[in-house]
Amino acid sequence: MPAPSPTLAELAARFALGLRGDGAVRVRGVATLARAGEGQLAFLANPRYRQDLAGTRAAAVVLAEADAADCPVPCLVAASPYAAFARIAALFETGPAPAPGVHASAVVADDARVDPGAHVGPFTSIGARCQVGAGAVIGPGCVIGDDCVVGPGCELLARVTLVTRVRLGARVRVHPGAVIGAEGFGLAMEAGQWLKVPQLGGVQIGDDCEVGANSCIDRGALDDTVLEQDVRLDNLVQVGHNVHIGAHTAMAGCVAVAGSARIGRYCLVGGGAGIAGHLSVCDRVTITAMSLVTASITEPGEYASAMAAQEARRFRRNAARFRQLDALARRMGAPPKD
Amino acid sequence: MPAPSPTLAELAARFALGLRGDGAVRVRGVATLARAGEGQLAFLANPRYRQDLAGTRAAAVVLAEADAADCPVPCLVAASPYAAFARIAALFETGPAPAPGVHASAVVADDARVDPGAHVGPFTSIGARCQVGAGAVIGPGCVIGDDCVVGPGCELLARVTLVTRVRLGARVRVHPGAVIGAEGFGLAMEAGQWLKVPQLGGVQIGDDCEVGANSCIDRGALDDTVLEQDVRLDNLVQVGHNVHIGAHTAMAGCVAVAGSARIGRYCLVGGGAGIAGHLSVCDRVTITAMSLVTASITEPGEYASAMAAQEARRFRRNAARFRQLDALARRMGAPPKD
Amino acid sequence: MPAPSPTLAELAARFALGLRGDGAVRVRGVATLARAGEGQLAFLANPRYRQDLAGTRAAAVVLAEADAADCPVPCLVAASPYAAFARIAALFETGPAPAPGVHASAVVADDARVDPGAHVGPFTSIGARCQVGAGAVIGPGCVIGDDCVVGPGCELLARVTLVTRVRLGARVRVHPGAVIGAEGFGLAMEAGQWLKVPQLGGVQIGDDCEVGANSCIDRGALDDTVLEQDVRLDNLVQVGHNVHIGAHTAMAGCVAVAGSARIGRYCLVGGGAGIAGHLSVCDRVTITAMSLVTASITEPGEYASAMAAQEARRFRRNAARFRQLDALARRMGAPPKD
Repeated sequence: MPAPSPTLAELAARFALGLRGDGAVRVRGVATLARAGEGQLAFLANPRYRQDLAGTRAAAVVLAEADAADCPVPCLVAASPYAAFARIAALFETGPAPAPGVHASAVVADDARVDPGAHVGPFTSIGARCQVGAGAVIGPGCVIGDDCVVGPGCELLARVTLVTRVRLGARVRVHPGAVIGAEGFGLAMEAGQWLKVPQLGGVQIGDDCEVGANSCIDRGALDDTVLEQDVRLDNLVQVGHNVHIGAHTAMAGCVAVAGSARIGRYCLVGGGAGIAGHLSVCDRVTITAMSLVTASITEPGEYASAMAAQEARRFRRNAARFRQLDALARRMGAPPKD
Repeated sequence: MPAPSPTLAELAARFALGLRGDGAVRVRGVATLARAGEGQLAFLANPRYRQDLAGTRAAAVVLAEADAADCPVPCLVAASPYAAFARIAALFETGPAPAPGVHASAVVADDARVDPGAHVGPFTSIGARCQVGAGAVIGPGCVIGDDCVVGPGCELLARVTLVTRVRLGARVRVHPGAVIGAEGFGLAMEAGQWLKVPQLGGVQIGDDCEVGANSCIDRGALDDTVLEQDVRLDNLVQVGHNVHIGAHTAMAGCVAVAGSARIGRYCLVGGGAGIAGHLSVCDRVTITAMSLVTASITEPGEYASAMAAQEARRFRRNAARFRQLDALARRMGAPPKD
Repeated sequence: MPAPSPTLAELAARFALGLRGDGAVRVRGVATLARAGEGQLAFLANPRYRQDLAGTRAAAVVLAEADAADCPVPCLVAASPYAAFARIAALFETGPAPAPGVHASAVVADDARVDPGAHVGPFTSIGARCQVGAGAVIGPGCVIGDDCVVGPGCELLARVTLVTRVRLGARVRVHPGAVIGAEGFGLAMEAGQWLKVPQLGGVQIGDDCEVGANSCIDRGALDDTVLEQDVRLDNLVQVGHNVHIGAHTAMAGCVAVAGSARIGRYCLVGGGAGIAGHLSVCDRVTITAMSLVTASITEPGEYASAMAAQEARRFRRNAARFRQLDALARRMGAPPKD
């Protein structure tokens, strides 16, 4: 397949973008504003990088209407420059799709059904009663336990584990090391010893979801753990048993959601944030990085509890005051907090 | 094996529970109060779900004495409804145990001793001088390095790594992706470069412990890292080198314990909490989620440092004041903190 | 290879250390001050353990000049006792290096070049156009995707994934479960759906870096994600796409660095800390454990935002006051914060 080299005019027509400047300019690749050179298309979406526009050596730039006048080279004008750039950049993703077929080393249960159009890589095992859909790619070193469904067009990149009773919809993308369907952390104390509570549920993951590298999604205790469609989880995210995450919600790296929490649609959870168990968060809630949600949230909006670092010597003096804040407030005549 | 369908009277007798209502009712499965239907047993342990009791369509409910009067269906009365339910639910866990034997693809060192009653799955390698006990199950894709012991009845579900010098007691359960016995993070700075400090110790894990998916327990630098019996770690937990964790302590997801910390027995550590290195926490300490322990704790009780999220605009105004809290306190006439 | 048993005089000469006491004493192993016995060398570097010096039964101790007078046994005096001990302990690391050669079960692409002096373990796959240098060790269960370079003397212990376009310099050490080169978390919202932004860059990792167990380093969107030489990452660390980490920086377990952050040289980041995206941290900055950096840092020094746990009942009263801190400050006559 020869590398593509569309003209700006072709890109403008294909992606419904405005065109300023010479439409005959050809694009042979994509790069950042600061590094783009001959034949490369750059983009401007985050205002932090506006300073790089004037000096760019890109062949052309994708940007918003408001920035077009300051662009020293031809440009494509988009309502959402980042989305437009994503679509154009996808033209330049290289690499052939893995060929259909099951690698000779793979171990597939007799009663598993693998679509002839699916790819199963080396050192992968697939358990009893599993189904793998058309066009699915299961990379090297994956372990698919019993009673799992891998929908059409899914991609499990490498070393993914689906433990048991995991059902992935269509086009779900799971990055290396992720573990879906492990036993939830259900324990009861009895006579001074922990007793394991059986985890009899499964995991349902909707179409177009993405699960980051080394992330974990536990299976439900009785009902299933559920991700609705188009949920996006970054790396090292922990999702406890019986959690329900609404469609189009995105969680950055290292977020932890405790068991039986119910998160709405179109929520954004910043890196390292924590959400306690057995609570609800409504649609369109943003949680800032490293914040902790301990009670249900019923109003859309932004919520925070993590403070920003300051010089440590000053921080420690302030923190020492915090430890006596209630006493300080009482001394000021504030009513007791108890 | 036919599915079990005990009567309530049989369950009451077997697990020493009180019975209210028709003891001839048969139970064919378990479910939540809200979802249980014909033939299914539910339970009420967490008061958050008491509202589901009146409308339940369960065949019967396991609950505490105090809730029995409000139960619209037959019930089993337990001092600890959650523990009783755990024992009953275990009757309904399906799936045959993996058959004894070593998969043809597994690579086992000549001088490793694998009990004939143990199961070793495909694509698993077992190093020199290892021992695998009776009834142990080592799932697919595991790597067991040199000089490890997997005790009788252990279960390593899939893709578990025991790096080297890891000794698991009996019935230890390790979830996929966990890494036990990696080198501790021991570094010395010398002439502007990091110098690796050899990690010559191992890891000892007591009977009935559990290690969650993608959790990491480093081996000791000189002595061993130790988990006493019945320690329970959730997913994505980090345990540094030379940590010692007392029996029956449980840690929720994403907890991090730094090197050489010594944690007592019957402690509970909330998700995302951190414990600094080279300190001691006594028995029966609870650390709330995302809190940070920086000094030894010598009194049992509950400890916290993580604030709960509030509306971000208000939070930011409060956080701005925090950054000047010492100055504010001084202005009020409080003595200096320095 | 017989176990080494150097005399103190030999060690002093080899590592340029001072010697106090009988230089003919032989050392047959290393241990902690508290546990060392006959023939074992201990060390004293952390003042927390000075109390163990008087009663030590070690054959000898490595320590600083200031502690030499209190040492009841022969000692080796070092400017940096920890570094000196690290060098001596390395003499006692046991275990032969894995033999050169590719395991029969490994799957290596036809056009990959594996140095004959490299070791490739069982169940490992190596993709198209990869290069593996002399003396490199790739342990069991690794997945090396297309277009990767594993430099000379690298060690990938087990179950490591290099997804694609990852270039490791010389002597890079990657612990089990680590995932390097996964797609960055680049998403654009378009018409209510997430659109994946292609991640066309790679990852460059300099000489002598170390990546901990189950850590993740995403590949760049357009440019590469970069770790300069001698960067040391502990377990469960998350590094987002296009991050740049300067030489000799060390990050403890569970740190998360968001995309496009630029971290300087000789920085120290405490466990569980978070660094937001698209910012810069200058050289020689220390971030304390679980702190959150949300703005660029331009002055070397120590920075903090994480409070230490206190008794929960008192903490909750203080936290309740925090939630009204701005109002409290205004009541005191402080100017508005808005």
